[in-house]
Parts: sequence; C-alpha cells; structure tokens
Amino acid sequence: MTNGKLITFEGIDGCGKSTQVQMLSDHLSSLGYSVVVVREPGGTDVGEAIRDILLSVELSPCPETELLLYLASRAQLTRQIIFPALNEGKVVIADRFADSSTVYQGYARGIGMETVKKLNAFATMNLVPSITFILDIPEEIAAERMKLKSKDRLEKEGTDFLKKAREGYLILAQEEPERFVVVNASRSPDVIFEEILLILKEKRVIQF
Amino acid sequence: MTNGKLITFEGIDGCGKSTQVQMLSDHLSSLGYSVVVVREPGGTDVGEAIRDILLSVELSPCPETELLLYLASRAQLTRQIIFPALNEGKVVIADRFADSSTVYQGYARGIGMETVKKLNAFATMNLVPSITFILDIPEEIAAERMKLKSKDRLEKEGTDFLKKAREGYLILAQEEPERFVVVNASRSPDVIFEEILLILKEKRVIQF
Repeated sequence: MTNGKLITFEGIDGCGKSTQVQMLSDHLSSLGYSVVVVREPGGTDVGEAIRDILLSVELSPCPETELLLYLASRAQLTRQIIFPALNEGKVVIADRFADSSTVYQGYARGIGMETVKKLNAFATMNLVPSITFILDIPEEIAAERMKLKSKDRLEKEGTDFLKKAREGYLILAQEEPERFVVVNASRSPDVIFEEILLILKEKRVIQF
Repeated sequence: MTNGKLITFEGIDGCGKSTQVQMLSDHLSSLGYSVVVVREPGGTDVGEAIRDILLSVELSPCPETELLLYLASRAQLTRQIIFPALNEGKVVIADRFADSSTVYQGYARGIGMETVKKLNAFATMNLVPSITFILDIPEEIAAERMKLKSKDRLEKEGTDFLKKAREGYLILAQEEPERFVVVNASRSPDVIFEEILLILKEKRVIQF
C-alpha cells in the first residue's frame, strides 16, 4: 500500500493513551522521523465539527447514530490526512482509530463487532494499522484518574461501561494477536513507554 | 411491522417535493389522519446538527463522509421519530429518505448503489417506504427554479450533477416498480397533487 506506518493506541478513557502518543511522537521526531499525530473523533475540519456533536451533553444520539458519526469522522481523517501521510512515508500515530468503534459501539453498545468491522472497512478503505497498542488498565483505576479531569458526555458512562469496553479490547487482541499488543498500563508512563519502544524494535515496525 | 404508512418523496432539488409534501400533509390532516412530516437531513436535534455540517459552505466532506453523515441523521430520525410514529398508526411523509443516498452518493458520486443500499439497511433497520414518489423533472427546469432560491453547498453542483441524479432515480424506479411511482413534475402543483392522490387511492396506501 504505502511506505509509511500507522501506529494506533487504544484503551479505555483514563488509560494514558494521549501521554504515550505524545512521548512516541516526540521520540520519533527527535530521531528524524516525519510524524503525524491524529486523534479521533476529529483531526479534520469536518471531523472536529462531528466531534462537537459527539461530545455535546445536550444531544443524545442512539448507538447507531453515534457509530455512523464516528465512521464519518474516520472516513474523512483517513482520506484527507492518514493516506496522504502514509504515501509520503510518514509515521502516523493515532490516538484511537477503527478498533474503538468495534469495541465501544460493536461490543459495549451491542451493535455487534462483525457489523462494525464491515462498516469500518468501508470508512477506512480497508486500512489496517501496522501495530496497535492496547493500554490495558482496570476500570476502577481509569475511573479514578478521570475524576480528576472535566467530564464530557462520553466520560460520564460509569465503570460498568468501562469494564465492558476493556473486555472488548481483550477479545479483539485474542482475535488478531499479530497486530495487537496488550500493554499493562497501570505502571508509570516511563516504564510503559520503554516497553512500547522495545516492542516497536522487536517487531521491526520502526527502524531504530 | 406497524400499522402506519411511510410515504416518501424523492427527486432532484427544484422538482417540487416540499410543495407536494405540504399539500399531502394538509389534505390527510383535514381528513382526520394523524400525520408526521420529516425532512432529511435533519428532523431531530442530532440530525439538525448534522445538517449544519452537510450544508456548510466552509466544509468539504469527501463523498464517503457525506454519505455517513446522511446515514447518521437517518439512523436517528428512523429510531427517534419514524418508527414510534408508525407504531402509533400515523402517516409519516418524508421529504427525502434512504433513496436519496442511493442516488446521490451511490450513483452520482460513484460509491455504488448496492453498497449504499446495504448501509441504508443498517441505518434504517431495513425500513422500506409503503410508496415512494419520484418527482421527475428535466435538470434544466430544476436548475432554473433553483436560481430563484438562495443556494447552499448542495445546490451549487450544476446541471451535470442534477442530470446524473435524475438518471439514478429512474434506475431505482426500474429496479423496484412496485414501490416507486415516477410522476411528471413539470406540470402545475395542483395537477401533480391530483395524480398523487389518485395513485394513493388506487394502490390503497391510504383509505380515502
């Protein structure tokens, strides 16, 4: 497909994705890599407008609507940002991507993981990440961390929902062990980051 | 499924859908029917927020994003408004519904009609209208009528696009002749409306 690499980070809110994304981006940039960081939902003009709908506390989209909005944001991000960057040989680091929908809407909301996978394939033109890190953390710890932050609609779900999402990620990881790497995210950011670098080296995703 | 009836109006912008929807709604209400009129995109809080994105002249969603946004609006409208109304035995009149995506994004934008039909089935829980009127009009007449109105992004497409959409509708009508009725919409609103009433009576969609 392309010369670039797509590295995605997944996990429940509060697992520390954004920190790891930032650390990896800084590290690879310092090594001379051309890095593009994207986040979901959002990352494009259209995507940010969709993000506003999804995070609004005044609107209550049903699960299918929510899913289609995520897919719309993803379709735009994939075509406008990710594919062009990959075609230029860049490293794209994504703070959530298609697997988030498979887990959240497919598993936790009950739409069905296989249904969501098919819809994702349409939205992303079958783009599959080179590697996906699942930052795994007990839902209680994630909930505790999130209490410290301001809460939007998505983060108000409670620990039962987080537990279900965590379960969903572990199911995905079992289904595709060659792509997913489950990382114990209860540890300190530095320790987690060291492990991530080690895995990227071992799996030869990035040449260090 | 339900006791109610879903009657949809389709056709290119400028064909006179809104006028016929209003006339039919008034007429059926005057006969004592409980009527709900919906429009796409929009019709719900979430849908109206999506509509703002779709009609914005500052945003340029790619065809797949556009499609997914229409589907998101439709998923919400179907679950929040249309199904509950049908379950209460009401007549739902829709100014555009799923066929608009099949024609505009599937055919005119080239995503593929079959692909869009599958996505529509997901968004609408396989809801199929009792009858669909295609108000057919030459693209030049439609374009001329639209010049008189203010133009948003969708209406700036030009007559080539309108021509393609018109073609798409006629293809759909051939595929499903039992559901679609093509009406010559170059005539006066009153004449068109008389024909529509006659068809509804003949096909026993509504008991007059």
